[in-house]
Amino acid sequence: MYAPVNEKVPFLWHGGDYNPEQWPRETWQDDFKKMQQAGITSATVGVFSWVSLQPAEDTFTFEWLDEILDGLHEHGIKAILATPSAAQPAWMSAAYPDVLRSDDHGHRKQHGQRVNYCPNSPNYRRFSQDIARRLAERYKDHPAVILWHISNEYGDFCYCDTCAEAFREWLKAKYGTLEELNHRWWTPFWSHTYTDWSQIMPPRAQAEVLTHGLNVDYFRFMTDSQLDCYRHERDTIRAITPDIPITTNLMGAFKPLDYRKWAKEMDVVSWDCYPRPADSPGQIAFLHDLMRGVKDGQPFLLMEQTPSSQNWQAINALKRPGVLRLWSYLAVAHGADSVMYFQWRRGRGGCEKLHGAVLEHAGRTDTRVFREVSQLGAELQQLGDSVIGATVDARVGIVFDWDNWHALDDAIGPVRDKRYREIVTKHYLALYRKNIPVDIIFPDSDLSQYEIVIAPMLYMVKEGFAEKVEAFVQGGGSFVSTNFTGLVDETDLAFENGYPGPLSNVLGIWVEEIDALYEDQTNQIVMKDGGATYTCGHMADLLHTEGADVLAEYGTDFYVGMPVLTKNSFGDGAAYYIASDPEASFLDDFYGTLLNEHDIQSEWDLPEGVEISQRHTDDQVITFVLNHNSESVTIDLGQTIYSDLLGGEEVSGEVHLPPYDVRILATTRAASS
Amino acid sequence: MYAPVNEKVPFLWHGGDYNPEQWPRETWQDDFKKMQQAGITSATVGVFSWVSLQPAEDTFTFEWLDEILDGLHEHGIKAILATPSAAQPAWMSAAYPDVLRSDDHGHRKQHGQRVNYCPNSPNYRRFSQDIARRLAERYKDHPAVILWHISNEYGDFCYCDTCAEAFREWLKAKYGTLEELNHRWWTPFWSHTYTDWSQIMPPRAQAEVLTHGLNVDYFRFMTDSQLDCYRHERDTIRAITPDIPITTNLMGAFKPLDYRKWAKEMDVVSWDCYPRPADSPGQIAFLHDLMRGVKDGQPFLLMEQTPSSQNWQAINALKRPGVLRLWSYLAVAHGADSVMYFQWRRGRGGCEKLHGAVLEHAGRTDTRVFREVSQLGAELQQLGDSVIGATVDARVGIVFDWDNWHALDDAIGPVRDKRYREIVTKHYLALYRKNIPVDIIFPDSDLSQYEIVIAPMLYMVKEGFAEKVEAFVQGGGSFVSTNFTGLVDETDLAFENGYPGPLSNVLGIWVEEIDALYEDQTNQIVMKDGGATYTCGHMADLLHTEGADVLAEYGTDFYVGMPVLTKNSFGDGAAYYIASDPEASFLDDFYGTLLNEHDIQSEWDLPEGVEISQRHTDDQVITFVLNHNSESVTIDLGQTIYSDLLGGEEVSGEVHLPPYDVRILATTRAASS
Amino acid sequence: MYAPVNEKVPFLWHGGDYNPEQWPRETWQDDFKKMQQAGITSATVGVFSWVSLQPAEDTFTFEWLDEILDGLHEHGIKAILATPSAAQPAWMSAAYPDVLRSDDHGHRKQHGQRVNYCPNSPNYRRFSQDIARRLAERYKDHPAVILWHISNEYGDFCYCDTCAEAFREWLKAKYGTLEELNHRWWTPFWSHTYTDWSQIMPPRAQAEVLTHGLNVDYFRFMTDSQLDCYRHERDTIRAITPDIPITTNLMGAFKPLDYRKWAKEMDVVSWDCYPRPADSPGQIAFLHDLMRGVKDGQPFLLMEQTPSSQNWQAINALKRPGVLRLWSYLAVAHGADSVMYFQWRRGRGGCEKLHGAVLEHAGRTDTRVFREVSQLGAELQQLGDSVIGATVDARVGIVFDWDNWHALDDAIGPVRDKRYREIVTKHYLALYRKNIPVDIIFPDSDLSQYEIVIAPMLYMVKEGFAEKVEAFVQGGGSFVSTNFTGLVDETDLAFENGYPGPLSNVLGIWVEEIDALYEDQTNQIVMKDGGATYTCGHMADLLHTEGADVLAEYGTDFYVGMPVLTKNSFGDGAAYYIASDPEASFLDDFYGTLLNEHDIQSEWDLPEGVEISQRHTDDQVITFVLNHNSESVTIDLGQTIYSDLLGGEEVSGEVHLPPYDVRILATTRAASS
Repeated sequence: MYAPVNEKVPFLWHGGDYNPEQWPRETWQDDFKKMQQAGITSATVGVFSWVSLQPAEDTFTFEWLDEILDGLHEHGIKAILATPSAAQPAWMSAAYPDVLRSDDHGHRKQHGQRVNYCPNSPNYRRFSQDIARRLAERYKDHPAVILWHISNEYGDFCYCDTCAEAFREWLKAKYGTLEELNHRWWTPFWSHTYTDWSQIMPPRAQAEVLTHGLNVDYFRFMTDSQLDCYRHERDTIRAITPDIPITTNLMGAFKPLDYRKWAKEMDVVSWDCYPRPADSPGQIAFLHDLMRGVKDGQPFLLMEQTPSSQNWQAINALKRPGVLRLWSYLAVAHGADSVMYFQWRRGRGGCEKLHGAVLEHAGRTDTRVFREVSQLGAELQQLGDSVIGATVDARVGIVFDWDNWHALDDAIGPVRDKRYREIVTKHYLALYRKNIPVDIIFPDSDLSQYEIVIAPMLYMVKEGFAEKVEAFVQGGGSFVSTNFTGLVDETDLAFENGYPGPLSNVLGIWVEEIDALYEDQTNQIVMKDGGATYTCGHMADLLHTEGADVLAEYGTDFYVGMPVLTKNSFGDGAAYYIASDPEASFLDDFYGTLLNEHDIQSEWDLPEGVEISQRHTDDQVITFVLNHNSESVTIDLGQTIYSDLLGGEEVSGEVHLPPYDVRILATTRAASS
Repeated sequence: MYAPVNEKVPFLWHGGDYNPEQWPRETWQDDFKKMQQAGITSATVGVFSWVSLQPAEDTFTFEWLDEILDGLHEHGIKAILATPSAAQPAWMSAAYPDVLRSDDHGHRKQHGQRVNYCPNSPNYRRFSQDIARRLAERYKDHPAVILWHISNEYGDFCYCDTCAEAFREWLKAKYGTLEELNHRWWTPFWSHTYTDWSQIMPPRAQAEVLTHGLNVDYFRFMTDSQLDCYRHERDTIRAITPDIPITTNLMGAFKPLDYRKWAKEMDVVSWDCYPRPADSPGQIAFLHDLMRGVKDGQPFLLMEQTPSSQNWQAINALKRPGVLRLWSYLAVAHGADSVMYFQWRRGRGGCEKLHGAVLEHAGRTDTRVFREVSQLGAELQQLGDSVIGATVDARVGIVFDWDNWHALDDAIGPVRDKRYREIVTKHYLALYRKNIPVDIIFPDSDLSQYEIVIAPMLYMVKEGFAEKVEAFVQGGGSFVSTNFTGLVDETDLAFENGYPGPLSNVLGIWVEEIDALYEDQTNQIVMKDGGATYTCGHMADLLHTEGADVLAEYGTDFYVGMPVLTKNSFGDGAAYYIASDPEASFLDDFYGTLLNEHDIQSEWDLPEGVEISQRHTDDQVITFVLNHNSESVTIDLGQTIYSDLLGGEEVSGEVHLPPYDVRILATTRAASS
Repeated sequence: MYAPVNEKVPFLWHGGDYNPEQWPRETWQDDFKKMQQAGITSATVGVFSWVSLQPAEDTFTFEWLDEILDGLHEHGIKAILATPSAAQPAWMSAAYPDVLRSDDHGHRKQHGQRVNYCPNSPNYRRFSQDIARRLAERYKDHPAVILWHISNEYGDFCYCDTCAEAFREWLKAKYGTLEELNHRWWTPFWSHTYTDWSQIMPPRAQAEVLTHGLNVDYFRFMTDSQLDCYRHERDTIRAITPDIPITTNLMGAFKPLDYRKWAKEMDVVSWDCYPRPADSPGQIAFLHDLMRGVKDGQPFLLMEQTPSSQNWQAINALKRPGVLRLWSYLAVAHGADSVMYFQWRRGRGGCEKLHGAVLEHAGRTDTRVFREVSQLGAELQQLGDSVIGATVDARVGIVFDWDNWHALDDAIGPVRDKRYREIVTKHYLALYRKNIPVDIIFPDSDLSQYEIVIAPMLYMVKEGFAEKVEAFVQGGGSFVSTNFTGLVDETDLAFENGYPGPLSNVLGIWVEEIDALYEDQTNQIVMKDGGATYTCGHMADLLHTEGADVLAEYGTDFYVGMPVLTKNSFGDGAAYYIASDPEASFLDDFYGTLLNEHDIQSEWDLPEGVEISQRHTDDQVITFVLNHNSESVTIDLGQTIYSDLLGGEEVSGEVHLPPYDVRILATTRAASS
């Protein structure tokens, strides 16, 4: 169990992005009153407000912000105070062009849009630090401020000459000598050997984009560069307000930045949840678990979600009635300690003026959305601190790795589309469907708290990971691995002992060849115990056992009869290898068996589309029952007697849930298994 | 009824683009004779001839043009004389690089292709004015010249620094202060506030492309910039030849230029009709009506069409036998006072050498195309001045607006593809199928001459328009509006009273939310009178009546039972709102009822694919009967006795039309209803 | 019959690309031993080794190469020695930026990737010549070296200013005067007339890309520029080692370079065979025949193929067991005198580390691929010199022309996608299915050795070709031509006498119009003799006979009854015109009849998927029986008695072939018909 983000406000925050600087003063009072009406307890202010705070290099205009913070405070609303550094003012780009980002050709962009700064620009660093310092000093004692929100949605890469030079320094620190770099990047290939550090350039289009070691290092360097921007502001602020926690808003499975590194630098993870239209609840749950995982299980803040619809998808359907509430509790069930929105009020202009908001352009409160938000606000108040800091207790971990993701997508062959995120999610969903809690973990995670560790398609195996897996299995754990695992080390250099490289020992196999299957082509997984036969596809490893047992064989093609599922008993545990991408029902059955062996089961037998997830405090288990169906369902909770945190009554046995409905039930820890 | 374009040639011109400068002199006499043979009465010369007229800055070579104009005149053929400014010579681009256009990254293009000049380039303006002046002075008394054709197919944007500076001046004139501009463009969003005019740049890719007010203003500025080029040449010429009318060739529903503004500056609209392969006759008719509409109903010139096939589509099928004649009369029926072609003779080289022409590369006259052109030439001669200046008399107007088109396509959400042109055409086609004449009108049009005004998807409602609609409805008119109407004002700023903004009063509704439907998703329009049920899709407004009656409700989804068709009685008229995009049969029925109420009906009951359109002179009605089918049809013209302008005989009752055939029938105005 | 490539090694070479500079010295001995084990007889070294040989402008490090060549020699392995000029070292790009290639906007690329040099760069020419000279001098007497391999896979275009200037010189030499150039390029169109040579630029994007004559000339110029690079190195080497043959590796139907020109400059053609996943054996055979054809029938070297899978397709399936052997013999059957691979050993890094190789990353020899390679090595040894220098004797020639390909794809209209390669292959496959040997020939080829010459879609007809065809037909040959033939001359200027231009006389037809058919649209070919009816599509010429007989007519549409297949008797032969793109069965029947008339038949009646191809030595016929099916087949070889070159026994009558199996059978020339 964790402490609240801010001890002074130990409840589920209900808030949203608020940009009063876009509106005349007369709107502000209207905002405050309607926020109260909607049960809003926090407002995120200052995001993208740079030019409104600093309209010229030597001019500062904090007065409007003073007034806003005071107004919020007077109305009992807390403030999440953002630094404005996600979009520099035009005057800065004009006076100091080095602040502008360069595109992947190395061409400096012109001013505009957002997140358009070079993360290594000395002037950007100087100005962003300065405005952060001024904000911290001015508001360090303001009673409304409960959290710092540094910048906004860091992301994407710069390829300018400043970055090129900084990259070279980063590489010198990493590799020491050009000889070592040339070796790790395998540069004699195509005569790419560097004979001077100055020859190394960012992977600009039409320049060197085919040296995989360089590419994955540039990703790491860009993560570090942007993280440096964050740290620069954070350290400045922390020195002034050591007691106010600091975050920045992440974006889930966002490929350009390695959030595992970021989480270590944040007091609390917060993130903006904008599912794609086709995402299922399980896929959204995966993202929440990922955001909980990057900080080793600590609860996170749901910083942004739309109250009604997004605007930047091709088709932006409205959230159906009840879905805002359902998905808000889905977040809470998976570790969120807040429910917040982008945005409080739709701007009259700007490219997000048609994005969903609590208040529409008409500013009316007699709307479906306002009603749903207000109802949710009331419920959150009712929940009080009951789930704050509560943990999700998982015995299964799934390994996810940003470096691996980049390296995979960069690898040329055997198939272009590696589907890493899709395949990790596929394994996750097999467990989600069984209502088994899962932690998303990382190559540097401690494995000892898990009984089952799954590492799908771990193409890149970093130093020390194999040893850790061996110890984990030795101690009784089950390790599950899949095809296309263990090809390269962390600089994308292929292992010399073949695949799965350093995992060969624990897996007891050798992969001789890798076949690629066309879209409409499948093979079969034929269980040797006479059980079911499943289809598989995408890629197929042709492997030989070197100690492992064969649990299933390919059913067709020239490699019929070769192993497709192996199990290597190793110490007290076992390591499994699934040599091709199986259909979902295989994973249902495979994990069903494996979970049984570890005696990990859900206690409920639920109809499709109903999820039960739990969070644990020191003395209670909070059980979230989520009906993701658009129809009513009746479920059987069994004999345990729960207390309904929203309704107040006691609940057990058969429970009826209307479409999209949620029940939040508490038991004392003794009562839960 | 209008005067002929040129009083000296009061008949349907039959001509085409003619580029003798590409050919040796010996071809010219062959051309003249074959033109006579084909009944060609005008030739458009000088288009793209700049380097042939001015091979160096101080060298002019008009002699060949002298000879051509004399030759045409000697053979009784008139000349439409073009200024050559649509493609500058290479020497000019080399000596004065500012004449070159810049791409949307602001990079100056290199010389080549066509329409490759910067419209704000001082040197381009100087040279284009100079060559226009020289042409006007040299040929001001030439008896062949009947019309000036300024440049060719103006279009598309330049993003250079010259334009950037001119844009800033344009903005200063429009907004006066940066404060006003910042307000109208809602720039505090994402810290986009301008603190100096110099910070404003064209919407270059990778610069500021997300400020919608800027984008729509840049479109307006580019329309104005190019129109200035036109005016520059036009005024120079008019001062020299005040009696020769002046035009430039437009391109129908061409998005980059607001032709409503252009038409006001042209003595006669002319346009180049190149339908897309899948365009139906009704869609082509829409374009003709649009080109008649931009100049408030004045007949136009069909400046270009292909006699056989285009070359720049993915697949360029031949016009089937008879279709050239049919589509030529389709143009005339909808307001054209000419039938002209691109091109007289296929060039031996150049990227249009495979475009259709009257003369193919072999130069033979024993071809299908030459025969069809010649037959048409003979008929046009027979028609004489019978339709010249005749009007199309419509009681229904459909509003089209270029600014709205740009703003719509720029809007982010609720769906990416707004389908404005498609949806306007869909409403048009419902009336076209009933043979009801329609005027395409604009927000600045006089509505008082119509009984029904339809404004599909008028996202942007400009100042004064709502008041005009109110007066129109008050006076008994029917106003029809659709979903996604009335969101923003003319600088793309959302209305503060919600949607449909200033049209709320006359429509008697409030739109609370907008749902977006996936491609394969539909809802239903359930008529409350127990009538039919229709499907609808794309978007769905969730609205509340505020005075209006509900004529139909949604049939499914969470907004089942909410209004989808409303009628607000207002003064002597009514305003309708169709809240989603309906299937075509709904529009057939809806407009059928509405037309009945206004007693607007076609007098004929025609089989599918047969069109009857009419033009009105002071004393006659010319009735065009067009069989768009590839099969014969028999129609019943009723008891009215028509005189056949081509056959000469009298016609009434049953008439047989072979595939693609046309009958052109005259009645005195008394005889027509 | 031809001499061996190198008289000293008169057998089928078995080898592959070998890059020891990527590996530590200890790997080298392992390589040599495993090469011996796999029956490898040659290794291609030095490709892309520039920086390893010349790490700085004045530093040379040949020692490792000395050691490698000695090591190969000691193990009885020959060396194909490459010059390293396909990728310059980074130090060269940094010090002499003119060596870098420019993209199609004329922007200089940055250093990286490969084939990234400007072919007209003086510094590139100087350095590449210098390293070639040093290699030749150092290794001129090395006993391992059997062939020079200049650079690697020349290709694609540069658009820099150096090239622009060289292009102008090239044009001056070709056209003499600007007047002539302006005429041939038809520049008065769109005012493109050049008034100074300096105005001519490469066809850069956003510059002049629509002057077809310029475009096809730039292609020719780029072919010549790169060929100059090759000649530069070749001549340097040849002066030092006059007795070692010289090649460079081509890439089959590679559009950017006219290999017909290249072949004339090469002692032996070599090429890299990487079929697309969907390519059938017949399509691969076409490429081999093309590579044999560019050098008028001389056997070629199969320089590269993958032993297992490619890596750069979207999906890279493994070659099924037996397919490596089958496709290797397919190459030999069509004229290859070698079987070689890319690559010997997978690199640990670099973008081709997942490309197939003889040795996988594990370096193990107990793999399927190593076994298949070794088995093949043993067989090749058994075959000895039996097929070396043997010819393919064809009586049918199919015309292919790179200039025509470029001009076709550049032509705008009647359809965008001209499908030249696809249509040429379609005609080829009709003969391939009948096991009739075909030569791929060119407009400059001698036609006299053929009885049937097929020239599909010869849009561009070069000077002299029509006369040659007339003489060929006069002498009894059959000439087959198709729609869209004879439109333009070699500068892309349309013929003035209509289509098919200079071929009108021999074909006896005039094409009046060209229709374009939509994807799902077809017409019919109705044989006038009452035979079958076939479908046709894509394009349809509407033609009139002028002497020719009509063999078939269109079956539908407005041109029903017009000729679609004509035959013009001309002297002792006949010329055929197929006016639309027919379905394959038409070509089966049409060529069936035509071959019968010429008494050209295959002697075997084979099941589908079984190919028999033959090569001829002075005294023997080598018959390759290839079962392309994944199932076994039994075929009947008839009464001829063959001797099996691999098995040793005599073979006749029924022969059983397992899946993918090959039989190589010899008969004395008397025995073969």
